[in-house]
Amino acid sequence: MTKTIQSKEMNDVLTSLFSKYGFTDEKAKLLAEVHTENTLHGVNSHGINRVPFFIEQLKLGLINKDIESEKVESFGCIERWDGKLGSGVINAIKCTNRAIEIAKENGMGLVALRNTNHWMRAGYYGWMMAKQNCIGILFTNTEPNMPAWGGKEARLGNNPLVISIPRKKGHIVLDMAMSQFSFGKMNEYKLNNQSLPFDGGWDTNGNLTRNPEEILTTKSGLPIGYWKGSALSMVLDILATLLSAGKSTYKLGLEPHEYGVSQIYLCINPNTYNDNELQEKLTEEIIAYTRDVTPTQPNGKTYYPGERSLINKIKNEKEGMKVSEEIWKKIIDLLNK
Amino acid sequence: MTKTIQSKEMNDVLTSLFSKYGFTDEKAKLLAEVHTENTLHGVNSHGINRVPFFIEQLKLGLINKDIESEKVESFGCIERWDGKLGSGVINAIKCTNRAIEIAKENGMGLVALRNTNHWMRAGYYGWMMAKQNCIGILFTNTEPNMPAWGGKEARLGNNPLVISIPRKKGHIVLDMAMSQFSFGKMNEYKLNNQSLPFDGGWDTNGNLTRNPEEILTTKSGLPIGYWKGSALSMVLDILATLLSAGKSTYKLGLEPHEYGVSQIYLCINPNTYNDNELQEKLTEEIIAYTRDVTPTQPNGKTYYPGERSLINKIKNEKEGMKVSEEIWKKIIDLLNK
Repeated sequence: MTKTIQSKEMNDVLTSLFSKYGFTDEKAKLLAEVHTENTLHGVNSHGINRVPFFIEQLKLGLINKDIESEKVESFGCIERWDGKLGSGVINAIKCTNRAIEIAKENGMGLVALRNTNHWMRAGYYGWMMAKQNCIGILFTNTEPNMPAWGGKEARLGNNPLVISIPRKKGHIVLDMAMSQFSFGKMNEYKLNNQSLPFDGGWDTNGNLTRNPEEILTTKSGLPIGYWKGSALSMVLDILATLLSAGKSTYKLGLEPHEYGVSQIYLCINPNTYNDNELQEKLTEEIIAYTRDVTPTQPNGKTYYPGERSLINKIKNEKEGMKVSEEIWKKIIDLLNK
Repeated sequence: MTKTIQSKEMNDVLTSLFSKYGFTDEKAKLLAEVHTENTLHGVNSHGINRVPFFIEQLKLGLINKDIESEKVESFGCIERWDGKLGSGVINAIKCTNRAIEIAKENGMGLVALRNTNHWMRAGYYGWMMAKQNCIGILFTNTEPNMPAWGGKEARLGNNPLVISIPRKKGHIVLDMAMSQFSFGKMNEYKLNNQSLPFDGGWDTNGNLTRNPEEILTTKSGLPIGYWKGSALSMVLDILATLLSAGKSTYKLGLEPHEYGVSQIYLCINPNTYNDNELQEKLTEEIIAYTRDVTPTQPNGKTYYPGERSLINKIKNEKEGMKVSEEIWKKIIDLLNK
């Protein structure tokens, strides 16, 4: 069962909630904004649905609400930051802004952040860079949840990757994990008693399967493109780990909870060339070209990365967001008890 | 039929060949080295096999052998270069070296190159950066050869992407196109009358297929991870195009031959933190973790990206390279006629 919540109401409730659990007014506002915005974009799993779990982690002491992330080393346009196990969202906003700042001064900036926590929806920070008219390349490592190609046990994270490009008619934001389907998505298929449309992972006999229940049991998701996504996931983990001198997927897997992840925030400033109009034209040509096709499905079409996310946002701003009644009740209870 | 050629012999023959076709001694040596090295790494398709086609393009006037690529704009650690339709290999070496130079001064450097030509094996330039103890992120756009997800006609390039990381025991070099299988690989399967091990593209009825012949006919390869690789291919094209102010996959598709592509050379210098030993340890931990598995195939194992390429090189240096007799004869004929 779902109920409809307007963004103003969600934002207010969440601000009060995060204040109640000890965040400063400024941080509570930021946290509320990110969770609301993620839900507006249709990503409830990394918006409103994740709030009770976040409060749980806070209570377990896995997130340090009073800490400020800090620059520990820098050279030219690259920096290393320590997130000190603070809120992943607060740390991510700070490092995104810092990467933008370096890029505006130097054409490009990179912040490698260690000891941080889950940043919720990765795309949020790509949108932040795009809104500043900048290109973003961002990724995080995660605990192990996919086998490396050729092996049976989970050894790779699904390591979400974001690439964002500013665009007047709607920013281009690719936001994708290295697994073919997220565990959240597979759970949806399972609850609806449906098969996945394509192989999504390994069953208990070590065969590829479209059965979401089997994959949720083995916890062995399939990397996109088989051996290719396996390799891509691995290099993203190595980059995040060694540039931040932080924890790798291997280290994250040694703990019962995922915390202290490593992340990369790379920002490129394309405005420096003073030909934004030309760049806009080139981008529009590419999008127009991909649209000029015979659709594979009747009434189908192609989308540019981020397009559906924007469509969700516009719809949800107008009509309100569909939120699980159970989740909303949990949040109101947390606020009132 | 194949014959065995030693690297010294190939290098000498190719140097003479490129000299004969008008390249300066320095350029002829570089070209010979890259084609030989690519063949040593086992990538004949972008090494020795491509030489006759390269000479063909030269004769057609698609490659300008006398030109030098040039920096056209710069800001801080990002630069735009114009390849002036010169040799893709020569341009790529210059821009790789330039990106390394900027990174050594500033922590990070980016060169966006337009109007260049095929750089042969993308991984070569990743190895170049790794040998300089630097991280590389490099990609190129190509002519359209894959449909965007949701559409039937080819609108995306397979846009090879390289991510390289220096490592004492063998550099880590991911070198992958956005298509599940290269057209060269599909041709091999076809010649051997074999099915692909996984879906590799679309048949004439618009269905996914493992039949390589069908895909070679439709010229509709499948992006890795379906909609995900489709989106990744698209953003790589947009980045290369707007950062270089160069040709997009769309523009490349308007011409009968692929020339004047756009490329990105991003280099990050991790040595600046003076903890190479720690970084090496972190990387080794990740690799060891992925190796510590039950193999999916009897006597199988997992590989780190670039490992097989290095194994090929060591073997080929010792035993000589297996080269198609037909290709080698073509090259000797080109040299002697």
